Amino acid sequence: MSHTNTQVLFHSRPAGMPKEDNFEIVERSMPSIGAGEVLCRVLYLSVDPYMRGRMNPGKSYAAPAKLGEPMVGQTVSEVVESKDSHFRPGDFVLGFTGWQAYAAMPAKDLRKVDPVAPLSYYLGVLGMPGLTAYVGVIDIGQPKEGETAVVSAAAGAVGSIAGQIAKIKGCRAVGTAGSDEKCAWVTGELGFDACINYKTANLDDALKAACPDGIDIYVDMVGGAMLEAVLRQINVHARIPLIGMISQYNATSPVPGPNLGPLLVNRATVRGMVVIDHQDRYGDFIRDVSAWLREGAIRCREDVVQGLENAPGAFIGLFRGENVGKRVVQVAPDPRRGAQR
Amino acid sequence: MSHTNTQVLFHSRPAGMPKEDNFEIVERSMPSIGAGEVLCRVLYLSVDPYMRGRMNPGKSYAAPAKLGEPMVGQTVSEVVESKDSHFRPGDFVLGFTGWQAYAAMPAKDLRKVDPVAPLSYYLGVLGMPGLTAYVGVIDIGQPKEGETAVVSAAAGAVGSIAGQIAKIKGCRAVGTAGSDEKCAWVTGELGFDACINYKTANLDDALKAACPDGIDIYVDMVGGAMLEAVLRQINVHARIPLIGMISQYNATSPVPGPNLGPLLVNRATVRGMVVIDHQDRYGDFIRDVSAWLREGAIRCREDVVQGLENAPGAFIGLFRGENVGKRVVQVAPDPRRGAQR
Repeated sequence: MSHTNTQVLFHSRPAGMPKEDNFEIVERSMPSIGAGEVLCRVLYLSVDPYMRGRMNPGKSYAAPAKLGEPMVGQTVSEVVESKDSHFRPGDFVLGFTGWQAYAAMPAKDLRKVDPVAPLSYYLGVLGMPGLTAYVGVIDIGQPKEGETAVVSAAAGAVGSIAGQIAKIKGCRAVGTAGSDEKCAWVTGELGFDACINYKTANLDDALKAACPDGIDIYVDMVGGAMLEAVLRQINVHARIPLIGMISQYNATSPVPGPNLGPLLVNRATVRGMVVIDHQDRYGDFIRDVSAWLREGAIRCREDVVQGLENAPGAFIGLFRGENVGKRVVQVAPDPRRGAQR
Repeated sequence: MSHTNTQVLFHSRPAGMPKEDNFEIVERSMPSIGAGEVLCRVLYLSVDPYMRGRMNPGKSYAAPAKLGEPMVGQTVSEVVESKDSHFRPGDFVLGFTGWQAYAAMPAKDLRKVDPVAPLSYYLGVLGMPGLTAYVGVIDIGQPKEGETAVVSAAAGAVGSIAGQIAKIKGCRAVGTAGSDEKCAWVTGELGFDACINYKTANLDDALKAACPDGIDIYVDMVGGAMLEAVLRQINVHARIPLIGMISQYNATSPVPGPNLGPLLVNRATVRGMVVIDHQDRYGDFIRDVSAWLREGAIRCREDVVQGLENAPGAFIGLFRGENVGKRVVQVAPDPRRGAQR
C-alpha cells in the first residue's frame, strides 16, 4: 500500500465554467481508521453535472462543497481495512468518499455492492444516474403504450437509460444530443426512434418531424431553449420530469425560463426531481434494470478517464459535451478486470 | 316578451388589450326553438379572464370564438319556453349561451340549477371559479395542516375562494392583490393571514415577511414576476397549481417565463389545470362549498355590472383589476330578487 494519499481538493469556487485551477492536487498522509470505520481504496469515481451546483456557495438540495477538502462525489471502492463487522477487506462498496485515492469512512455511510455487473456500473446504469432515469420515466413520466417521450442529453448517463426505459414501456423515444456522432449512437446502438442534433437543427422543425403525434413526456436534463421548444409541442396532460438544467449551471447572471403558457393550455405537469428522494425505489430499480441489462433491452456505454489527476478535466469536459455514455474516472486498477479493466 | 334580441357580437380580434370596438352590439330577431331545444332568457353572464384566450385566432384548450357571433361565455338563464321534457318555463339553467339577451339552446347543453343560493353564485363561488379553486387547492395543492399557501389575484373570483379553502384546510393563507383596498378586504372580510399589494411592495421582501416558513402551495392565477418571486421562496416538495396567467394574456410578443431552477432544487411540482377536466369533482365541490357557505367558513362578494351593453367594459375592466370578488353582468331582472336583485 502506498504511504501517501492523493487528493483532489476543491480549491476555489468557479464563476461560470469551472476551470482546472478550481482544483488542487495534493499528497497527504494515509488516513487511519477508528472503531466503526472502514478504509476504502477508491477504484472509480463518478463525475456528474449536478456537482456543479455543489461548487456554488449557496445551499442547493445539498450543502455546498467545502473549500480545501477533497471534491465531493460518489465512488466505488475496495475495502482494504475494516474496523466494522459488516465489512471485510476485499468487499466492494459505494460511498461519497470524494476525489481521493483512499478514504476513511464511517461504515454506516457505505453500501456494499454485489458485483454481478462491472463495478463501475454502480456509478451509472445501476447507480444514481440509472435510478434517476428509472424514477423520472416511470414514476413521473407515467409512460403509456404509443406515447412519445423526448429525452434531452440522450447520449449522457441519465438520458441514454431514460430513452431505453421509455422504449421498453412502449413509447416512441426521441433523443436530443450535441453531435451527429452521438445521435448515431443513440439511434443505432440504443434504439431510440430518432435523435436531434440540437446544435445544427431548427428545434421546432426537428421536433415536429420527430414527434408527429406531439410530445407526451419530456425528460429534461438541460432546460433552456430545448425546454421552450418542447413546450410548444406538448400534448394535453404531458408530464415533464425536470431532472437537470445543464444549460444554465454555469450561468453568471439570472437566466429567464420558458413561457409556461403551454403548461396551462395543455394541463401539463412539470415536476422537479432529485434522486435522493427516491431511495424507496432502489430495490425495484435494481431488479428491473439488471434484468433489462441481461436481456439486452438496455445497453450502456462508459467513458472511462484514467487517473485521479484527470478528474478535474473529466468533470469540466461534461459541460463541453465530451462524453458519450456515463463518464467515470478510474482511480486504481479494477481487481475484477485486471490492471487496466 | 320583447320582440328583438340584443346581442353583443365578437367583432374583431384584439391585438393586446381588448377594446370596446372588438365588440358590436346589435338587435336581432328573437330566436325560435325546435324539438329538444329550450329558449333561455339570460339573467346573469359571467366575465372571466380566460375568455381573453378565446379571442385569439389559435386553438387554446377550446376552439377560438367566432367573429360575428355572440361573444362566448357562461350564463345563468331562466327558461321561457321549452320543447324538451326536462325543462319547464321558470326553471333556472346554466349554459354557454354567450352574450345575448335570449338564446335557443339544445337541452343537452344546459344544466338545471337548484337555487339554494343566489342565482349568480352559480357563475362564481358555486360555479366554474369555485370549482377551479376547489380542485386547485385540494387536488393539486394537497394542503397539509400548518403549511403556507400563497394565492395570487386573491381578490378575484378564484383566488378569493382558493385562499379561504386553504384556511379551512389548516394552512396559513397569504394573498396578493393590486390595491390596499383589495388587500384590506382579503384579510379583513375573507380572513387571509396576510395580503401583499404587488403594485407597491417589494415582492421578495413582502413574501419573506408574510411567509416566514416558506411557501408550500402557490395558487397561480397571474404568472410573470409574481410566479418568479414565489419560486425563489418555495419549500421542498412545493405544489403549484397553474390556473391562469393574466399578466401575459394581452402580451403582443412572446414573454419569457421564470427560471425553473427552484423547481429542480426543491423537487416542486407545477401543474396546469383547466376546470373542464375536473367535472368528476362537481358533486363533492357543491356539497363542500355549499356547507362552507352556510357555516360562514367561506364568504364571497360579487361585483355586479348592470346591463348587457356594459358587458364589453366589464370584461375589459378585469385586466385593469377593477373587480373585487366575482364580476358578473346582470342582463335581466332576477326573478328571485325583485327587479334590481
